[in-house]
Amino acid sequence: MERLMIISSDCHAGGRAEDYRDYLEPAYRERYDDLLAHPERTQQRAAETIGVELQSIDPTAGNDDGPPGPLTAQWGAQRRIAELEKDGIVAEVLYPQPAGPAGPPFYNTFGHALDPADPALTTAGCRAYNRWLADFCADSPAPERHAGLALVAVVEDVAAAVEEIEWARRAGLRGVILRSQPISGPGWHHPRYEPIWEVCESLAMPIHTHGGESLEYGDLPASRSIFFTEVTWFAHRIFWFLLWAGVLERHPGLRVVLTEQFADWIPDLLHQLDAQYEGSVSGMTRPEGLKMRPSEYWARQCSVGASFMSRRECERRHAIGVPNILWGSDFPHDEGTWPQTSASLHDTFDGVPEPELRAMLGENAARVYGFDRAKLATHAARVGPSLEDFEGN
Amino acid sequence: MERLMIISSDCHAGGRAEDYRDYLEPAYRERYDDLLAHPERTQQRAAETIGVELQSIDPTAGNDDGPPGPLTAQWGAQRRIAELEKDGIVAEVLYPQPAGPAGPPFYNTFGHALDPADPALTTAGCRAYNRWLADFCADSPAPERHAGLALVAVVEDVAAAVEEIEWARRAGLRGVILRSQPISGPGWHHPRYEPIWEVCESLAMPIHTHGGESLEYGDLPASRSIFFTEVTWFAHRIFWFLLWAGVLERHPGLRVVLTEQFADWIPDLLHQLDAQYEGSVSGMTRPEGLKMRPSEYWARQCSVGASFMSRRECERRHAIGVPNILWGSDFPHDEGTWPQTSASLHDTFDGVPEPELRAMLGENAARVYGFDRAKLATHAARVGPSLEDFEGN
Repeated sequence: MERLMIISSDCHAGGRAEDYRDYLEPAYRERYDDLLAHPERTQQRAAETIGVELQSIDPTAGNDDGPPGPLTAQWGAQRRIAELEKDGIVAEVLYPQPAGPAGPPFYNTFGHALDPADPALTTAGCRAYNRWLADFCADSPAPERHAGLALVAVVEDVAAAVEEIEWARRAGLRGVILRSQPISGPGWHHPRYEPIWEVCESLAMPIHTHGGESLEYGDLPASRSIFFTEVTWFAHRIFWFLLWAGVLERHPGLRVVLTEQFADWIPDLLHQLDAQYEGSVSGMTRPEGLKMRPSEYWARQCSVGASFMSRRECERRHAIGVPNILWGSDFPHDEGTWPQTSASLHDTFDGVPEPELRAMLGENAARVYGFDRAKLATHAARVGPSLEDFEGN
Repeated sequence: MERLMIISSDCHAGGRAEDYRDYLEPAYRERYDDLLAHPERTQQRAAETIGVELQSIDPTAGNDDGPPGPLTAQWGAQRRIAELEKDGIVAEVLYPQPAGPAGPPFYNTFGHALDPADPALTTAGCRAYNRWLADFCADSPAPERHAGLALVAVVEDVAAAVEEIEWARRAGLRGVILRSQPISGPGWHHPRYEPIWEVCESLAMPIHTHGGESLEYGDLPASRSIFFTEVTWFAHRIFWFLLWAGVLERHPGLRVVLTEQFADWIPDLLHQLDAQYEGSVSGMTRPEGLKMRPSEYWARQCSVGASFMSRRECERRHAIGVPNILWGSDFPHDEGTWPQTSASLHDTFDGVPEPELRAMLGENAARVYGFDRAKLATHAARVGPSLEDFEGN
């Protein structure tokens, strides 16, 4: 029986407050203790930005013997790997928890800064998270299974951001998560961010956005629904900001990964951008310096982290680009496929030819993140879903 | 030979500075003269918002015997009607010029306020434009051919906005143009705007957004391209703000028209909103009070002003809703179909069955704006394109 190597391009892990505290620079520990003592501040910020009440969660739910749920993100590596294996998954790309007790310090309201006026707080929280994550991956019983991504949320000080990315690479992290747009300051099309693109290209650190950020909607009854309608769009924007600013042209080795923001919109967007490039939009002249059509930059340098990918998205895979699709489970979130990944894979992929199946479910991610395929193959031979189980194979 | 009644749901008209000046409340005339003497301020605002340099145009180009071009929007009604007829069009819905010499006073940088800190300026400019437009329509040799839309850009003072809408109805205007989102203050989901929805429903004044507004991008080389990529999306937003806030449910007689923002995105959006409504998006509970699926509100109460509609959009017409499509020429803008409307109609609509053709090209607009079909029929019998010319009919 042949088994498939499944890599989830979208998983979430987080520490406990006491774990993060140890990684926080001492100057920020008192502020962190103060924040932990006042969870209502985090609640209030979530309410005023996107009208969402954060769930109040028993922190012991994150223990290795705790009940499965969002705080499963806090499970230790051994328990975590066992859970992934039950789901047929041999390796994962790691994002932080977006909100709640396991989220990076000072950083738990859906990407909005807890205190936008104090970027140093967010920076300190990200640094603590990144150091926790690097150790989590390195200390795992199977480090080859985790590709941790460094969270670089503050880019006002570009040199400091570059330094953090260099540190992350040395510490074994495998990519960089940026905000959908900088929390403050000009957008991603500004030349001031050039050193970030340079270092990410030269160190082969893909950059990522993850669905979750938006404008602020105020604490109104409709805010939450509007947030859910709009939130994926905002995560797409970095692609066309970098495209039109010539960043993808100047840095052909830079990779951009757009995760948990659906994938069905990509064909129409590429159609729109190509039309704009070809000058069919009036008032729009072809931007100087772009040698290829937008869809060609997409094909060459971009990936979609297709979390809980639907049949509908799978049907559009050729227009999206099979080599550009990285399937993801979104473990351990409710909207993800865990713990029913097997059923979800069949719903989405039955009838898809083997080479395409292998590409989207694991091979593409292995290439983007440099996973050790030989090591993963031994795990996959044990826990991967059977190729024969997929109809048409 | 049977001819079709063609109504353009998207045309642009504007006065000259001296015309607007007469309609401006006297207190603002000095400010207006000052602005006219300093066109570089308008230029600078356009540059800092969307990186666009406004074309500098010889104002005499707007004369009735001037060359065809954007300033054709300033042509008198007689010359204008002759031009529309040459294009096979018998009636039109009128929007302002978005920028440049014919734009409403104090209001000519793609929907961004010239001075966001001074909403009274924008209000005064809109009032002057609306009064000019009402007279333009009433004094036309064929008033039955024009449906003028009142521009209500400032809604900080809701009572004043309601009063302006009531005035517009009395003055013969046939709908209201709102900003994609309020220039300042909370979004369209806020209950403070309820009186606006009430008055628009009770007076049968459809509300409109027109592509052209966006976030601000700064004066950077890529800004213009990014603006063109994003600008249509921002005009869509009012639909889901009103939907999720229950406005369409509470005001079943309110009509929302989304103009010059493409139409191909509508089927995917409705799919997404319905999925969200049906609870397949995690963390999202069905909003209270919505009795129908989002796609049903769309079908009942919304229209797309499908300017220079493409074959691709036409192919999606059933998923968009044939009764919800209002074709438009965007006269006299470069990106529109004028003066090649006939060729464009064939490119887009050849092979479409007659009832669908009639609906999208004129009947739907006649219903939404209350055009006098008997009067228009006499014009159409003379200038409309021949039905037999459309392949398949």
